[in-house]
Amino acid sequence: MLDIAIIGGGPAGLTAGMYATRGGVKNVTLFEKGILGGQITQSSEIENYPGYPNVVSGMDFMEHWPEQAMRFGLKHETKEVLKVEKENELFNLTLTGGESVKAKSVIVCTGSNPRSAGFEGEKEFFGRGVSSCATCDGFFYKGKEVAVLGGGDTALEEALHLAKICSKVYIIHRRDEFRAAPVTVEKVKKSPNIELILNAKIDRVFGGKMGVDGVEIIFNDKKKKELLVPGIFVFVGMDVNNEILKQNDGTFLCKMSKNGEVVVDLSMKTDVDGLFAAGDMRIQAPKQVVSAAGDGAIAALSAMEFLN
Amino acid sequence: MLDIAIIGGGPAGLTAGMYATRGGVKNVTLFEKGILGGQITQSSEIENYPGYPNVVSGMDFMEHWPEQAMRFGLKHETKEVLKVEKENELFNLTLTGGESVKAKSVIVCTGSNPRSAGFEGEKEFFGRGVSSCATCDGFFYKGKEVAVLGGGDTALEEALHLAKICSKVYIIHRRDEFRAAPVTVEKVKKSPNIELILNAKIDRVFGGKMGVDGVEIIFNDKKKKELLVPGIFVFVGMDVNNEILKQNDGTFLCKMSKNGEVVVDLSMKTDVDGLFAAGDMRIQAPKQVVSAAGDGAIAALSAMEFLN
Repeated sequence: MLDIAIIGGGPAGLTAGMYATRGGVKNVTLFEKGILGGQITQSSEIENYPGYPNVVSGMDFMEHWPEQAMRFGLKHETKEVLKVEKENELFNLTLTGGESVKAKSVIVCTGSNPRSAGFEGEKEFFGRGVSSCATCDGFFYKGKEVAVLGGGDTALEEALHLAKICSKVYIIHRRDEFRAAPVTVEKVKKSPNIELILNAKIDRVFGGKMGVDGVEIIFNDKKKKELLVPGIFVFVGMDVNNEILKQNDGTFLCKMSKNGEVVVDLSMKTDVDGLFAAGDMRIQAPKQVVSAAGDGAIAALSAMEFLN
Repeated sequence: MLDIAIIGGGPAGLTAGMYATRGGVKNVTLFEKGILGGQITQSSEIENYPGYPNVVSGMDFMEHWPEQAMRFGLKHETKEVLKVEKENELFNLTLTGGESVKAKSVIVCTGSNPRSAGFEGEKEFFGRGVSSCATCDGFFYKGKEVAVLGGGDTALEEALHLAKICSKVYIIHRRDEFRAAPVTVEKVKKSPNIELILNAKIDRVFGGKMGVDGVEIIFNDKKKKELLVPGIFVFVGMDVNNEILKQNDGTFLCKMSKNGEVVVDLSMKTDVDGLFAAGDMRIQAPKQVVSAAGDGAIAALSAMEFLN
């Protein structure tokens, strides 16, 4: 029987594990099927984590987190959690292979994944010119030209954000109309350094060892065009990793937003007693390492209060 | 005219400043009358900031934060803000000397201060045996005996927390009844390793270069007793630094909790457009560096959205 089960080994989960064990909770296990560290390990550069003034790769950045988190007694299981259910005041975690684990409380930190657009080179150059986060990576293209792919609210809002930092922002969108809010579309159209490339998509991104050199755009009429930009921001949707909260009847274990994020309050409490969420999978997540870690600390303190 | 005025130079304010300027906001000024770094600079040890596995002093820990925050264009004014008001969609900051500054948006990060109990040696040993945060410092006394001073909810909840880590917890309280919730009092009384020392207060704390050796307790009947404990946790109240939000008519600029904390949502928005709060002065603040920094990032992103 676990006191706290933590699901997901990114910044939120590792911080929750450190706070819970350092706070004296005995049986705390973190389940992470992949490598510890989370999505940020795929970034080539991070320079906005407070206290880390040097630009480091995401992999180097996360290097010390597991060691620090495990120091106080946190256990790590390299197992995948398939489902979380609640029965008689206890949580039941189903793992791959049918194994099940009981826990008094659960902190879910499974994050979210930006959707791929599917163009050639997208994976290869991810974190080295292809990005899904303007707040994180926009500054690396200060004074340069960048391209944004997408036509929704996020794409246009992030384009406006990038337009403040970059010399020029191209928005590439497969239609000639935008799904984004009209007021956002208006702002984009009025921005002197945003250029719309409509009825088009990215065919491939090209570059070398140093990163991206540009993108090849293909229009709906099959014409092609090259754009020499070192940065491409892809905003074609987000998948919240909420599968484990799906119950047998198709509903979710706790209240979710219409985008599939877990609804929490400032204490990272869900509407189910003993169930907490932290990091990128919760509503209004800013998708920043420091905020995810802050969430993890709060979720652990809330879980400890719940166990008391 | 500032785009964003940040008030307070602790982890929340510095992070907000970094995010805003790195995000391309031009005129961002942080007002901090004292040294940059905040309350944590008074701690002798910090080991639970994610990514910093080594135990360092609060002063060393904060060393690189200002440099990192200023790198992107954040300005720092060593001036005290006395009052924040809103007139015609703009904020007006009154500084000492009567100077006033206009800002489109404001992020308040002035923190809170633990109240002093007033015993001899309290200030001298603060951060070296005298603490006001069990979550932060409890683990440094793992397996040792500690004393808690206070009789309210926080004191008793923190004593329960410490009882999981420490071999024994003495609760020193000036009355023979507790203000804390009855259910918490019950739990404390049932804890085998918590001992109550009632009708008593701390007269003085004594120790040497290495820290605290113990406390001298004085009972209401003037009898004295020595307790050889290396750690004393003082929970006699918190003062939220909210004075700057007080208006001429005695009300506050924005909605406050009954404890004087700023009411915010998950975006760190207050109920006043363009006014944000982050860190220890907001409701339900866990009073941890990483959470304050996470708040700062969120508040900056919200302010940037507001400015758009």
